[in-house]
This record gives sequence, structure tokens and C-alpha cells, in this order.
Amino acid sequence: MASYVITGSSRGIGLGLVSLLASLPASQVGKVFATSRQDNSPKLTELIKQHPDRVQFVQLDVTDRESVKRAAAEVERVLDGKPLDVLINNAGFMPWTSGGVVDADDLAETFNMNVVSVHNVTRAFLPMLVKGETKKVFNISTSVGSIAQANRYMHLLVPSYKITKAALNMLTKQYALEFADAGFTFVALSPGWLQTDMGGEGADLPVDIGVRATLHIVHSKTKKDNGRFFNIKVAGWENKQGPNQYNGAELPW
Amino acid sequence: MASYVITGSSRGIGLGLVSLLASLPASQVGKVFATSRQDNSPKLTELIKQHPDRVQFVQLDVTDRESVKRAAAEVERVLDGKPLDVLINNAGFMPWTSGGVVDADDLAETFNMNVVSVHNVTRAFLPMLVKGETKKVFNISTSVGSIAQANRYMHLLVPSYKITKAALNMLTKQYALEFADAGFTFVALSPGWLQTDMGGEGADLPVDIGVRATLHIVHSKTKKDNGRFFNIKVAGWENKQGPNQYNGAELPW
Repeated sequence: MASYVITGSSRGIGLGLVSLLASLPASQVGKVFATSRQDNSPKLTELIKQHPDRVQFVQLDVTDRESVKRAAAEVERVLDGKPLDVLINNAGFMPWTSGGVVDADDLAETFNMNVVSVHNVTRAFLPMLVKGETKKVFNISTSVGSIAQANRYMHLLVPSYKITKAALNMLTKQYALEFADAGFTFVALSPGWLQTDMGGEGADLPVDIGVRATLHIVHSKTKKDNGRFFNIKVAGWENKQGPNQYNGAELPW
Repeated sequence: MASYVITGSSRGIGLGLVSLLASLPASQVGKVFATSRQDNSPKLTELIKQHPDRVQFVQLDVTDRESVKRAAAEVERVLDGKPLDVLINNAGFMPWTSGGVVDADDLAETFNMNVVSVHNVTRAFLPMLVKGETKKVFNISTSVGSIAQANRYMHLLVPSYKITKAALNMLTKQYALEFADAGFTFVALSPGWLQTDMGGEGADLPVDIGVRATLHIVHSKTKKDNGRFFNIKVAGWENKQGPNQYNGAELPW
């Protein structure tokens, strides 16, 4: 009966996570707060109609601190003293820069979306997480944000995304160190290259495969994994040629 | 007769680098452009008085894109067609947050100073660097920005500094990959914990020791080191107990 808050739930990985959580037995999943900037996703609306007691929409613009505070207050009201168990910081932004790093004019804006927002959402929900036993926070990062593996992705023209996801990894590590003694599990995870609107049709994996592997990380990682950075695991992809192997291993920073 | 641009030259490591470069023979060092937001450093003014043909002050507020462009134009005018050889992005900011990461309200501002500014300065000076044979850019990073070594520094309450320096490391890597074929050397370097205004009196090393070790990296690293992250080397500090060893080795990301 764990409760979840998921940001960026209107589409892609966020929507997929809400959908998969909605399908699991009530013994495993309690309330799922699906947050998004706008309430305009027909698929999310349909999910909520099918699971009105489980899935609840919460308006949350992660880049607007007041909106974050309002959303946290709303979730707290609904939880009515019960803890929040899992926060998944999924909302993110991957702008393309065809001219490469030298032409990136969106570094500050992308940092605000991919790092400052995660920071503000996390600290707004901490008081509800701290009340529980689970205390899990997953930040959706990417193997593309691994500085050690940057060579693999040198032709992927998303410099601001790469730079801000490396920063997100350090943010995750800072929270992990600061809240280890309080029993938290902060994990950065790479959900794989999925066929979402952001990933495009040529991506490695269908959304549902990546989402299932992502949720496996969410459910299987515990305190001993606090402050680590994990790749998803997908059968048949453990030793693939090319930049991406989905072997469930830790990723280098 | 190499030419240098150094940001943040009014004090600390920047001032130390200008001072050391001013003392080297003319066969090694040509023009040194000492940049700073304000022309109010008595020590820098004295250095310029002593070495009027070598050291030149250039007003440069790294957070102001127009100021960066004006400074680049001024340096270009003085160089008069000759290349710029070495750019040292030294200007940086280390705000303290006594409550730890959860209280950090200066993440965006610190990112602007420590990452966006380095990006804007670098791309403004690239056209002068590309004309030369040397083509070296050193970004002053820190071992404290190593995600892999974050445990060592968990009690150092500078979360925004740590997070933005990890991002600076990825920025450095992106430039390194993009300009490798053009013959550039982009290096992130950790200058050690020095007894500057920023480092405090309790720091490991006198400024001149750290600055000498930093300049050794600047002069010894070449294209084969492009995209790497180096620690300084200081005799007697290679295997010290405690968080900091100054062994000249690569630092993990």
C-alpha cells in the first residue's frame, strides 16, 4: 500500500509509471499522485477515470516554487497524516543544439528545469517522506549524463541536457549523504532510451519495457543503494553492441 | 612567448597565477590579460605597474554576456591578429549553506557563476584560441566536485559549489570532445585547498605552492590530456592522510 508522487506524468515515462502502478494489486500500491504542469493529457485523464480511488491528478509546475508548495500541501491534505513512500522526480527537458556545446544558449534554463526543480520538489515533499518507513526518492537521470562515458554520446547534440544531468547526479549524491542516517534511499537512475515523444521512434526500447525496468529499480533498491546511479536491466540488452547496454549495473559518474 | 587570459585575477588563485606568470622569462610568457569584474585590487595594480608591458588589466564581469564580449574584443584588439594561447577560467564562487543541501537557495545563481559564465567566456575567446598552436583551456574545478569522491567531503557545507562544479566538469568534457579534432586541450583541474580568501587560513597549502602546482599542470598538459580532470602535485602531499592528496593524478568524475 505504498504511496507515490510522480512528476511529469502527462506523457512518456511519467505516464507509463502511473499506468503500470495503476495496474498493480492494492496490496502493493496505494495512492498514486500523478503530477503535471497542465491537466491536458487525455491518456492520464482516462487512467484516472479507470482508477479513481488510486490515481489522483495534482497540478504541479516544477519550475514554479509556489506551484510546488501548493502541490505538496494538496498531497499532504489527501494523505491526511499518512506518509508519502516514494517520490519519482521524472519531469525533465532535453533541448537539442544542432551546433553543439558552443551554441548552447539554454544552459541556465535547462539547469532550472532539470536540477533546481528536482531540488525544490524534493525538499517540498521531504516532510511527508520522513514520516514513512520507505523513504525512497528516485531522480530520473540518464547514462548520457555520465561524464566518464561521455565519449559514447559525443554525437548526441544535447549538451545542456548532458551538463545538467551530471549536476543532477551530484544533487542526488548530496541528498543521499545528508539523509542516509535518516534512513532514506536516494537513487539516480537511467531509464534507457525509450520510444517516448522525447526519445523518438528510433529509440532502443518501447516505453512499457523501459517503464517496467525502471519500476523494478524503484521497488528493488533499498538503503544499501543510497547515493548510487543505476542502469535498467532488460533481457537481451545486457551485452548489446553500441552505446547502450541495459544490464542493471551501476553507471560510472 | 605564450599569451594568457585569466579570469578572476583580483585575488586568490587568479592573482597568484598572474604574479607567477609575470615572474617567468620572456621566452616563456608573452602577454598576460588579467581580468576581473572591478579594477580595485591594489596587488594587481602593483603587479601591472611592475610589468606594464606584460600584464594588462581587462575589465570582465563573467556573469554579464555583454561584458564578456567587450573584454574579448579588447583582447583581440591588443593581440592584433596574433593568437591567444591559454585561457584559464578561474573566476568562481563557493557559497556556504549551513543547513546543507536542503537549504540551498542559491543553486541557480551559483550555476550561472560557475558554469554558464565559463561557457560564455570560453566561446567568446575561442576565435582567438583557434588561431594558435597551443589552444589550451583550463577550467578551475575542484576535487570537491567529484561525484565519485563526494563521501570525503560530506561535512563541507557547500552543496551548490559541489553540484555546479560537477556540471563544470561535464561542460569541460563537452568542449574537449567537440574541439579535440581542432587540436585543443580542455582540462578540468583541482588547484588544491589553498589559503586564499575563499579557502581560509586553515587550508592545506599556501597560495604560492598551489599556484605553482596549478601552472605546472597548465604547462605540462597537452592534447593527449584533453577532456581529463587533474589534481595538483605537491611534494610531501602525495599520500597524506585525510581527504586531500596532491599527487598529480587524474581525479575520478
